[in-house]
Amino acid sequence: MAIIVQKYGGSSVDGPERIRAVAQRIVNTVKAGYEVVAVVSAQGKTTDSLIEMAKSISKTPPKREMDMLLSTGEQISISLLAMAIDALGHPVVSLTGAQGGIMTDEHHTKARIRKVDGARIRAELERGCVVIVAGFQGVSATNDITTLGRGGSDTTAVAVAAALDAEVCEIYTDVEGVFTADPRLVPNARKVTEVGYGEMLEMASLGAMVLQPRAVEVAAIYGVPIHVRSSFSPHRGTIVKEVREVERVVSVTGVASDDNCAKITLVGIPNDMDILCQVFSELAAESINVDMIVQASKDESTTDLTFTVAREDKVQALATIARIQGNRSWTVLCDENVAKVSIVGAGMMTNPGVAAAMFEALKEKNIPVQVVSTSEIKVSCLIPRELYKQAVQACHHKFQLENGN
Amino acid sequence: MAIIVQKYGGSSVDGPERIRAVAQRIVNTVKAGYEVVAVVSAQGKTTDSLIEMAKSISKTPPKREMDMLLSTGEQISISLLAMAIDALGHPVVSLTGAQGGIMTDEHHTKARIRKVDGARIRAELERGCVVIVAGFQGVSATNDITTLGRGGSDTTAVAVAAALDAEVCEIYTDVEGVFTADPRLVPNARKVTEVGYGEMLEMASLGAMVLQPRAVEVAAIYGVPIHVRSSFSPHRGTIVKEVREVERVVSVTGVASDDNCAKITLVGIPNDMDILCQVFSELAAESINVDMIVQASKDESTTDLTFTVAREDKVQALATIARIQGNRSWTVLCDENVAKVSIVGAGMMTNPGVAAAMFEALKEKNIPVQVVSTSEIKVSCLIPRELYKQAVQACHHKFQLENGN
Repeated sequence: MAIIVQKYGGSSVDGPERIRAVAQRIVNTVKAGYEVVAVVSAQGKTTDSLIEMAKSISKTPPKREMDMLLSTGEQISISLLAMAIDALGHPVVSLTGAQGGIMTDEHHTKARIRKVDGARIRAELERGCVVIVAGFQGVSATNDITTLGRGGSDTTAVAVAAALDAEVCEIYTDVEGVFTADPRLVPNARKVTEVGYGEMLEMASLGAMVLQPRAVEVAAIYGVPIHVRSSFSPHRGTIVKEVREVERVVSVTGVASDDNCAKITLVGIPNDMDILCQVFSELAAESINVDMIVQASKDESTTDLTFTVAREDKVQALATIARIQGNRSWTVLCDENVAKVSIVGAGMMTNPGVAAAMFEALKEKNIPVQVVSTSEIKVSCLIPRELYKQAVQACHHKFQLENGN
Repeated sequence: MAIIVQKYGGSSVDGPERIRAVAQRIVNTVKAGYEVVAVVSAQGKTTDSLIEMAKSISKTPPKREMDMLLSTGEQISISLLAMAIDALGHPVVSLTGAQGGIMTDEHHTKARIRKVDGARIRAELERGCVVIVAGFQGVSATNDITTLGRGGSDTTAVAVAAALDAEVCEIYTDVEGVFTADPRLVPNARKVTEVGYGEMLEMASLGAMVLQPRAVEVAAIYGVPIHVRSSFSPHRGTIVKEVREVERVVSVTGVASDDNCAKITLVGIPNDMDILCQVFSELAAESINVDMIVQASKDESTTDLTFTVAREDKVQALATIARIQGNRSWTVLCDENVAKVSIVGAGMMTNPGVAAAMFEALKEKNIPVQVVSTSEIKVSCLIPRELYKQAVQACHHKFQLENGN
């Protein structure tokens, strides 16, 4: 029998009525002839109240203990969902991350899945049970509870789907799918019916947080098709899957946007690889994701280094840099008044006119570009945050995304 | 270094201030030269709100899922307590029941500890950590989370103390120790400084719920001394330990009382052992504790069978009996308007006058006795519930317990 993995986010299980609705959807999928594994996040309000509890005890709680605390959030939602499915008369079992075989590394609060041991899940499916697995959490080699960081439940779902060789991994969200731009910024943004992993990855990394980038990476590695769809609607959403090159045409799929970034510049650092390696390896050791690295040499001996990080990582990133700096006389600048706008599309870079058209769109609106970075399938520009919405709209219109691809 | 196990109940960790006070007490114990393992219950309000959540989903949630849900309560309190100890600058680690090696059978919501694998706890102590273990919960052979039922944290603490060969197991409660009677019923009840396991067991079983009976049983088997004391006071409480026979004098230690019972009577059942065995083995299979069994044959072929159960088990017990009964014509009576009063004391039964004195005390107050049962060290009487307080006071006064033992 084919297996479907369904992931439900925190808003989908917020309260008894919604839990019952999810239970009914799962039972309907079973009746349609599938074996179902549901991956569930914590109810939003639960996580908030747990964080508040921790704050009432300590300003700097140990990360291991934060994971111990926060992982109760999913444990509550999986047991409640299992009760709701049981009440509909269907056999069901809930599993914590550890019980579900979600093995991670030991980076508490930002752990990565190393492996999914699907033995227990498979055994429960064979017994005829719906299996509910706690998202966002796992267990380290030392048998400690870990959490995967923001959006980690998507990654759990895709990793479980890969381990079970599921037909599809359905990600239920509060939007209808992946759009050509954030509909809150661009009212005539259009739903994309199908998108490749690479493009989705760029979209996700660049702020279109419908799907966690790590989840897309895992899906791409194992070839798991993802169906991003709404919890509140029966309509087909967006399918993320391998798109063969021959099917591709040069096109911009969408405009991604991210106003949750901070720009850090190290001015006048020594122009050698040692410093560069040290900065990025130590930031990586702290699990701080770095984006848009730009280096411009001033002369032979010194250089300026600019990069962006997520805004919540800013303080930790600056502390790391201060530690590396010691008593050397660099100037460190930090600007939070920035936003990132990117155009994403398969095969886009074989057409150099695309980047030029983007710059033109921004110039027409008098939007200055501070930093540019490009990849095979995207062009990103860092701009002043107050011009964010205008920039997204200008790019969306320039590539006529409202008219369909 | 000597190990002390400390158990803190739900009221001891209810809110940040109390958690900080417990953390300070633990750190003080460490500074006094001990290795400390703390066993902690869920905050009372957490358990209540979890039960409410379950009720909002299903009237009959599966027991396995109730355990999954309720076990989050201790997970929250252990992580918060660990954060508070960390904030005092002492190394600390919290462990769930499963991580702490608390292996149980598979009777969800009423599991029994089979074994404590102390390897992880010992390793953490050797690293210099205070270890916080979740009470009330464990893990079954199938790697499912179980809970031990009401008061199970006491049992966890004693079992951990036994596994680690601890010097003492301190049970922190909101009372000063074990009293000669419930102080709410008998204002001049006196604190007992020392009591044997057997007497404590009878006291506990008979409603003086300062300590869980199962915890006393485990302590007796492994010879773990228990110190029952107050979270809110530095005074010495009551030590429960092996008392050698030569030290004993014939005496009544205390009056135990229990108004949480229901009397069930099967009238006119066949006078054969098959039925008797079936009734009690099936009740045991449902983990329903039965007390005060009395059987009185009416004639050669039929008999009346009376026993008591905890009031919360009444519905399940009656359902079990109905199943056994099938379409046979027994009459089943159930009376919740009863209470149990018992006198407990080592070597008491070598003095037959003790039982007689108890009956006399009840007769003087016109309190009718419905059922009597006795053991080596106690005499219990079932009486009408409305006369409960009077009966306890009469017995306490009769044996002059207010004057010291």
